Amino acid sequence: MASHLTLTEVETIARDRLLAAGATPAVAASVARSTRLAERDGLRSHGLLYVPIYAEHLECGKVMANAVPEVVMPRPAAVCVDASNGFAHPAIDAGWSAFVDATGTCGIAAMGIRRSYNCGILGHHAERLAEDGLVGLCFTHAPASIAPTGGRRPVIGTNPFALAVPDGQGGARLVIDQSASAIAKSEILLRSREGRQIEPGWALDAEGEPTTDADAALAGSMVPAGGQKGFGTGLMVEIFAAALTGANLSVEASPFSGKKGGPPGTGQFFIGVDPSTFGGATFGGAIDRLVEAIEGQEGARLPGQRRKDNRARIEAEGVEVDDALMARITGV
Amino acid sequence: MASHLTLTEVETIARDRLLAAGATPAVAASVARSTRLAERDGLRSHGLLYVPIYAEHLECGKVMANAVPEVVMPRPAAVCVDASNGFAHPAIDAGWSAFVDATGTCGIAAMGIRRSYNCGILGHHAERLAEDGLVGLCFTHAPASIAPTGGRRPVIGTNPFALAVPDGQGGARLVIDQSASAIAKSEILLRSREGRQIEPGWALDAEGEPTTDADAALAGSMVPAGGQKGFGTGLMVEIFAAALTGANLSVEASPFSGKKGGPPGTGQFFIGVDPSTFGGATFGGAIDRLVEAIEGQEGARLPGQRRKDNRARIEAEGVEVDDALMARITGV
Repeated sequence: MASHLTLTEVETIARDRLLAAGATPAVAASVARSTRLAERDGLRSHGLLYVPIYAEHLECGKVMANAVPEVVMPRPAAVCVDASNGFAHPAIDAGWSAFVDATGTCGIAAMGIRRSYNCGILGHHAERLAEDGLVGLCFTHAPASIAPTGGRRPVIGTNPFALAVPDGQGGARLVIDQSASAIAKSEILLRSREGRQIEPGWALDAEGEPTTDADAALAGSMVPAGGQKGFGTGLMVEIFAAALTGANLSVEASPFSGKKGGPPGTGQFFIGVDPSTFGGATFGGAIDRLVEAIEGQEGARLPGQRRKDNRARIEAEGVEVDDALMARITGV
Repeated sequence: MASHLTLTEVETIARDRLLAAGATPAVAASVARSTRLAERDGLRSHGLLYVPIYAEHLECGKVMANAVPEVVMPRPAAVCVDASNGFAHPAIDAGWSAFVDATGTCGIAAMGIRRSYNCGILGHHAERLAEDGLVGLCFTHAPASIAPTGGRRPVIGTNPFALAVPDGQGGARLVIDQSASAIAKSEILLRSREGRQIEPGWALDAEGEPTTDADAALAGSMVPAGGQKGFGTGLMVEIFAAALTGANLSVEASPFSGKKGGPPGTGQFFIGVDPSTFGGATFGGAIDRLVEAIEGQEGARLPGQRRKDNRARIEAEGVEVDDALMARITGV
């Protein structure tokens, strides 16, 4: 059996559960908002499914309920936030207006967040920059799951980057949001739970050999998309999100799942660019022509189009949430 | 038959040929220096092999011999260079000190170059930032050769990004330099000239179907590394190097080979980050641990290691240049 919920109901349920787990009202509101946005775009692994994990992590101390983010600006284009081992979302909120203002003033600026936690859907942070009229390039990292080419021990996480481009009307024209791995780790976890094999090319076992066994994959490493180049892209993300911010490296971070290991202490690095700065007024027209060159081809779609389609549908229709999940969230 | 040359001889030969083709002394010196660095790292496609093409492009007007780069700083962290359809290298040189100074002052800064030409080995520009003690993330684009997933008409070029990390001793600890395509276009051109087939997974024909025929590949499109994600990475590069700078898009740029189409009018976008800004003094130690996590594994190597190995060898030994190429350069 399942319940039918509006997105506002999704947000309320998430917020109430986070408050019950000890989050402050501002923190609960920020994380619940991200839950709503994930459900809105059909990204269910980061929607209500994650709320029991957030609550568990508040309760076991992986996320500090009483964390107060500290914001400093050591240079005119640099905003640094110490999330103090609380959630990433309120730390990002804490630095946001300084970051956006610095981007406008300096032409390009960045915000580094350290001692934080996973930030949910990375593309939503990039999109928020686009909503502020800026080009946003965002990096976040995760506990190590991808080995370097030729090696067998994971060094970097699934380390996504996201890029959003403003549409000049308060939204995003284009959002790229992609991890460094060939497949999402959540898909391998799902196959493991269901006792199904994984596809060739998704993962290696602990000896660094290709495997189609989901459990062997979880004990081994994820294959990067595009081989060595995928590892290179994930390494770029690692250098920005972890090394530059002063966060733990992916090899040092405790897991984003389970109760063990204390706070992961990971990081994010967001770059904002004012699109009128470098090429004057030409940016919007260039993006129009680029989008047309892609969308004008039969069979080709812009990155992020599936999310956009989901969004239109789910905003109108709401979501189905199965009773077992509702019971895990509400305790009823 | 072949000549044996020192790297200084390589640089002199390149400079003299560029001067003879009409380049000013400063321009010839800048481009000849890049020729030396390519040969030094064993990247021969961008070494002396390119000098006859540079000369041809000066002579046919694809590159303007009398171009004067114009540098402006519209914001404190933003350097914009109009290469005026000259070579990219002197345009990059023209903005360099303002760019490096802005990065130190602001914590992060960027330089956008428009109406330029290909910039040779992108990693060398990132490495130059590392030599100045900065983290460098560089983007450059190229005439369209990669189609979007599901489409058949090329929209983006092989669009590489490069990232370099300073070693704290005036050099780079780590350089990533990778194109968006599964294989370098020069490899497909080589196979075409030799009448050999290409490997599966490298290219599509003009109908968007996989091909192992080199000529069909050249009439079609290159496959991105990692499929849709490789296209996404190349699209990120396109948005920075072309759309943000005010350059031509890759679909609009004339070819980097042959005499037709006038100046390509492409662009570059370089981001510099002062590594002490966001994480304080922790950066060097984090990079040490990250490098150790990779190099400490049997069979795993840092990105850029092959170039580093070549460099040590070629600086000592010099290079062999076949007489046919020497004749094409020196006209003897």
